Amino acid sequence: MPRFLTIGVMGGMGPEATSLFFSLLVKSEDAVRDQDHVPVVVCSFPQMPDRVAHILGNGPSPLPMLIRTAKAMRRAGADFAVIPCITAHYFYRDVAARSPIPIINILDETAADVRKRRPAIRKIGLIATSGTVNTGIFHDAFKAVGISVLTPDRGGQDRVMNAIYGGIKAGVTCGAPRKAILAEAFALIRRGARGIVAGCTEVPLVLRDNDIPVPLVEPMRIAARVAIKRAGGKIRQL
Amino acid sequence: MPRFLTIGVMGGMGPEATSLFFSLLVKSEDAVRDQDHVPVVVCSFPQMPDRVAHILGNGPSPLPMLIRTAKAMRRAGADFAVIPCITAHYFYRDVAARSPIPIINILDETAADVRKRRPAIRKIGLIATSGTVNTGIFHDAFKAVGISVLTPDRGGQDRVMNAIYGGIKAGVTCGAPRKAILAEAFALIRRGARGIVAGCTEVPLVLRDNDIPVPLVEPMRIAARVAIKRAGGKIRQL
Repeated sequence: MPRFLTIGVMGGMGPEATSLFFSLLVKSEDAVRDQDHVPVVVCSFPQMPDRVAHILGNGPSPLPMLIRTAKAMRRAGADFAVIPCITAHYFYRDVAARSPIPIINILDETAADVRKRRPAIRKIGLIATSGTVNTGIFHDAFKAVGISVLTPDRGGQDRVMNAIYGGIKAGVTCGAPRKAILAEAFALIRRGARGIVAGCTEVPLVLRDNDIPVPLVEPMRIAARVAIKRAGGKIRQL
Repeated sequence: MPRFLTIGVMGGMGPEATSLFFSLLVKSEDAVRDQDHVPVVVCSFPQMPDRVAHILGNGPSPLPMLIRTAKAMRRAGADFAVIPCITAHYFYRDVAARSPIPIINILDETAADVRKRRPAIRKIGLIATSGTVNTGIFHDAFKAVGISVLTPDRGGQDRVMNAIYGGIKAGVTCGAPRKAILAEAFALIRRGARGIVAGCTEVPLVLRDNDIPVPLVEPMRIAARVAIKRAGGKIRQL
């Protein structure tokens, strides 16, 4: 039996995204028997202070609890961790510096994956919440590998937010919300984007790879594959 | 903010069932914000020795690792645990006796739930793997509340196994596998069953409550509700 490392999933931001990421991990593995799967520890602690509120200066820092969560995962046997929440990566550097286990940086892994598998991409479009766009965390990660990030103009970003909060989060994954996201993706492509980053968990619910003439980059799928490989598991080839 | 207890999910038996149970927990909650959700620790340790092999006398006991898992969950903050695997309940008494945290018994909770919410049921049909049927763990749990369990005859049980292992586990959830499970459910109802227990995770994938004229009892859904209540969370009313 192979000796695997144990993946820690720092969850609760929110619980649905955590649950989705866990199922993505399980489905991404090339496993026949239970014993072929890598071990996983999930700590879903939704009482984490709101990340966006803190970034906007309206609430306590989630940092102490993020670090407590890393320690809890370590105590349960996790060898390294992944945070299936883009926004939380705003705190990545501080968490990683004080965590007892290494933490995969989803943004850096996404940028590295695009650089390696799509070397022709020099400009990439980002569809994400205004919070994520404004922190600049995707811009920084892609800039480090020589890729520049295009985002919707102000009106377009408002329409993206409206589609996410006024539609997709409420379960509406066709009609107007899908049309709005598609329109912004095509606008970015017209402006030169050679790929589109699904920068929050809601985007892949309405936008699929074959909807657009350029690759759709899904950070959570990339993170799942990176985590499984690092743990010594086998990836299902799609 | 309410003070919740933390649910421990003793997983990995198998990882898909664990992931399904975690998403069932999240979906069963009546929560608006992340912070309304109860905290959950999942330890998915698929290197657990095979339960059925050990019951049949062909392999090492999973008991030491089940107990190690309970201890790992405790260290990560779990206040009590649930094991989303029916077969593992064969070892329930031994695990519960040596676990540092209380463990919900899914079988006892299922029997109690039927007794309370469906007091007219005196005979219930069980559709499950031969392993589960042969251990008699459901029979014992229902007998304790005065309900007797009917199982398919030998030919019917073979057809159930064939539908589960030859169809549903491979992703075929319509056609022949569904027909076979439906036929056995109706055979049990003709013999006097006033409810049908979906005794393994594959059954609800092909059999739904409105397919049959008696209630479909789903132990994992009952377990999810019991765990959320015990943690102090709110149940979504369907």
